[in-house]
Amino acid sequence: MQLLGQLTVAGAVSEEQFGDTEKGQIIATGSVLIEHKFLRNCGKVGHIEDVVVDQTVRGQRLGQRIIESLTQFAKDKGCYKVILDCSVENAAFYEKCGYKRKEIQMAAYF
Amino acid sequence: MQLLGQLTVAGAVSEEQFGDTEKGQIIATGSVLIEHKFLRNCGKVGHIEDVVVDQTVRGQRLGQRIIESLTQFAKDKGCYKVILDCSVENAAFYEKCGYKRKEIQMAAYF
Repeated sequence: MQLLGQLTVAGAVSEEQFGDTEKGQIIATGSVLIEHKFLRNCGKVGHIEDVVVDQTVRGQRLGQRIIESLTQFAKDKGCYKVILDCSVENAAFYEKCGYKRKEIQMAAYF
Repeated sequence: MQLLGQLTVAGAVSEEQFGDTEKGQIIATGSVLIEHKFLRNCGKVGHIEDVVVDQTVRGQRLGQRIIESLTQFAKDKGCYKVILDCSVENAAFYEKCGYKRKEIQMAAYF
């Protein structure tokens, strides 16, 4: 959660909420959500979310490894594509990871 | 599935895959996926996907009603935001529904 706090407001999460908390310090993390669609023959889409590398270890290609691992995981699960949203400044990084610009993201906050 | 075919390649889906198929013709549809995060105090995010209105009934604000319903559903489920990806041409429609442009979408296809 300390690491995720570098990305946005993390909030306090109890051990119980977290599930299987690692004992060591996590220096890079990311997640991929597998969406089950009706489209594309009940196809699956991976949504990459919340990728962050600890600021003390940036520039070591850890981010790229995280993205590659998440992408491969989604592919292995049978996804026909993986999508993610990022800032314009981070687009070049994801292009290095094999991603291409597609659409624009819209959001409504409550 | 006929309606979803106006959005992208739908593919043949059996009754069994579809679950509770409606008997009548569906003229507008959309879905919202609820993502459970660790961030934001284990917050939830709604992802709106696959919104389509039958081309024979467009211009009757059905799309807006679909978006409003999906957004309200996500809000009722405790989501702190709802996001979606769309083409630049469709951004004005979503702005009318209360959405704002945020980031850019990246995609990798297999």
